[in-house]
Amino acid sequence: MSAAKDLVIGLAGLGTVGSGLVQLLKSNASEIEQRTGKKIIVKYVAVRDVNKKRDLPEGAKLIDNPLLMIEDPEVQVIVELIGGTNLAGTLIRKALENGKSVVTANKALLAEKGEELFTLAEENNLFLAYEASVAGAIPVVQTIKDSLAGNKIHNIFGILNGTSNYILSEMSANGTQFDEALKRAQELGFAEADPTLDIDGFDAAHKLKLLVRLAWGVHYPYDKVSIQGIRNMSAMDIAFAQSLGYTIKLLGQAEYKNNEIEAGVSPVLIPAKAILSRVDGAFNAIHINGNAVGPLFLHGLGAGSLPTASAVLGDIMSIMKNIYDTTGYVTKKFPLAPIANIDNSVSPWYLRLMVHDTVGVLRDVAGIFAKQSISIAQVIQKKQQEDGVPLVFMTHETTVKAMKNALAEIKATNILNAEPVAFRVLELA
Amino acid sequence: MSAAKDLVIGLAGLGTVGSGLVQLLKSNASEIEQRTGKKIIVKYVAVRDVNKKRDLPEGAKLIDNPLLMIEDPEVQVIVELIGGTNLAGTLIRKALENGKSVVTANKALLAEKGEELFTLAEENNLFLAYEASVAGAIPVVQTIKDSLAGNKIHNIFGILNGTSNYILSEMSANGTQFDEALKRAQELGFAEADPTLDIDGFDAAHKLKLLVRLAWGVHYPYDKVSIQGIRNMSAMDIAFAQSLGYTIKLLGQAEYKNNEIEAGVSPVLIPAKAILSRVDGAFNAIHINGNAVGPLFLHGLGAGSLPTASAVLGDIMSIMKNIYDTTGYVTKKFPLAPIANIDNSVSPWYLRLMVHDTVGVLRDVAGIFAKQSISIAQVIQKKQQEDGVPLVFMTHETTVKAMKNALAEIKATNILNAEPVAFRVLELA
Repeated sequence: MSAAKDLVIGLAGLGTVGSGLVQLLKSNASEIEQRTGKKIIVKYVAVRDVNKKRDLPEGAKLIDNPLLMIEDPEVQVIVELIGGTNLAGTLIRKALENGKSVVTANKALLAEKGEELFTLAEENNLFLAYEASVAGAIPVVQTIKDSLAGNKIHNIFGILNGTSNYILSEMSANGTQFDEALKRAQELGFAEADPTLDIDGFDAAHKLKLLVRLAWGVHYPYDKVSIQGIRNMSAMDIAFAQSLGYTIKLLGQAEYKNNEIEAGVSPVLIPAKAILSRVDGAFNAIHINGNAVGPLFLHGLGAGSLPTASAVLGDIMSIMKNIYDTTGYVTKKFPLAPIANIDNSVSPWYLRLMVHDTVGVLRDVAGIFAKQSISIAQVIQKKQQEDGVPLVFMTHETTVKAMKNALAEIKATNILNAEPVAFRVLELA
Repeated sequence: MSAAKDLVIGLAGLGTVGSGLVQLLKSNASEIEQRTGKKIIVKYVAVRDVNKKRDLPEGAKLIDNPLLMIEDPEVQVIVELIGGTNLAGTLIRKALENGKSVVTANKALLAEKGEELFTLAEENNLFLAYEASVAGAIPVVQTIKDSLAGNKIHNIFGILNGTSNYILSEMSANGTQFDEALKRAQELGFAEADPTLDIDGFDAAHKLKLLVRLAWGVHYPYDKVSIQGIRNMSAMDIAFAQSLGYTIKLLGQAEYKNNEIEAGVSPVLIPAKAILSRVDGAFNAIHINGNAVGPLFLHGLGAGSLPTASAVLGDIMSIMKNIYDTTGYVTKKFPLAPIANIDNSVSPWYLRLMVHDTVGVLRDVAGIFAKQSISIAQVIQKKQQEDGVPLVFMTHETTVKAMKNALAEIKATNILNAEPVAFRVLELA
């Protein structure tokens, strides 16, 4: 281990996100080194019960008091993933007082008691990074902080709580009542045994408060955010909304208008045609409107072990770049890409032929497909048009090479009235 | 002007994006200073014709040879917005050789001749920033470079050319033929007089090459990207695709598989239900899948004066943060937000009442609405259910206060069988 070469971190908490981070540090070590020229060394892992068996990063010391990490001058960054507000708050404060930057996913702490900590970080010119606190894997903090730094933000709104969104999606798709949808969410691990934070809107309000802070550079006290959850949502209202052309979503909304800021969380009817209505299940999504950027929309996983750890790791690497003053990739000259032969690429295909209306055409084409092992999923034959009979095929997965061969063979016959049209098909969820 | 305090830049090019940047530097000066503690001073503006009348930033010198800016040691960052590959390439090379970071929107230059320039930047530990080159206002470069830095990227695909997407959207929505849709795009300023770069897929391929470079840290030569444009797109194929449940989009797609990378641009059928199918008009959108982040989707304006300038400005400010070693907002303690009174907030409302089935109920409710100046857009009355008759209203825009008052008055009558349900409505495009 060498602090001169590597980044040394202390990790507090080995729950869902902490374990995800440990897993990523191992599986993605080559990507990390490629981009930073350094390794990330976990010197300490602090957990409540040091006797429980765990997968630890190589060489990490297991401790039960996270505050011990602060005293080690070799530790450069503290990663706080224990949650709660007491010990976590103390840990972050002491880390910042001792010259260590902090990465955290603790939205409740930052939203309710964060101002002192943010100020402390700024005063010491340290990072208090919290991408993972807002909308999990979606890079909304970095987007507002850096990419949109030169914008006047008009408003921000979105789906900030995956649990509520899962329940509302379930109710919308299947006409399920709230209690049943909640139970299902709990069985699938999308909701906690005590779902209060999620379904009563508090979690979304924590995130909204942090977004308001970032977008407008102000302290909007968490207890001033107006909050209405979805606990009493009725299947009847979801059905009425649908019949009127709307979807009900739990939205966090913040707007800057007439030199004032309004921020609230509540169930809102949005047009079924809007892209936000398409945000289903445990996904999160955020609209940001700025005077330069226009409308921007970000969509991704709002929770989960690896997605949240992805955001934590991104923050750690940004801090590394700052500490070691690198610009991104450290490779001076990029190696040539290993280029795949597109002939081997596999997908379904759409194919339209304009053929003479003669007996046996379909048989001939089908024969050529069979010869190339191309399996047909659908066929449409339409009636005679000006330039022939359109014959449309959707194939199952096949290679570019097989399709090229088939097209060449079809062209070599005498059945075509026009150039064939062939497009690939991308099946998406 | 003080180089110790402010950031001094030289701007080459005052076309669509350059003018947008000048406009933003003026209109958003307070946001820039709030986040960086500094001003951005444009010391030079280089244009082809110095005799033409122009809106210049205060104090800027108009010059016709952009290379002159390189020789001024006070200039810290060169912003290259002249386009083309010859002079622009020379300008960027000389800037990097002389210790100046560069911000550019020049995708063609970077995609076709960028490797030498990127290497030069890395060798000198300078920034060659190009967020504006790929998908305009969408922060995809920063997302891949920083937020997803710790990910193994599986694939990237998306709509990278707004002109083509506008044409395909137009053809899909109205059954328009290609030539007519192109003409319309040209009339509206979405397509150039010579649309080759856009409709033949070259522009999307430039962007894709840059994304591949960034995602996998490799040089994927631009001429190895397989390219098929939309020039011969037929309204018939769009109609067939629709009848099969698909939308045709011009996609850039790159995938890392079996240690090889495949990259191509082509028209592709995607399911009409997919969120990507909803990307209409001149918008761009990008899906990124990584082993930690999972699926991430970004959507925004891919071109235009202010959106592209927004990305340029974000890059300039990121470089400032690096030069002056600041972490984000420079305010140590954030001021209290000016909190809007939510009672004055205006929106349409959804309201459901469960009422007794008696004569005059609708009249009574309508009377209360009229008294509060709430205008009704739609009413649904359904037949008797177990707990009463559901009476559903969609109102036109009204304040929270008026709705609260109306609800209080309705509750004070004797018509309700259950608590009323009231949600706000958000109208979205």
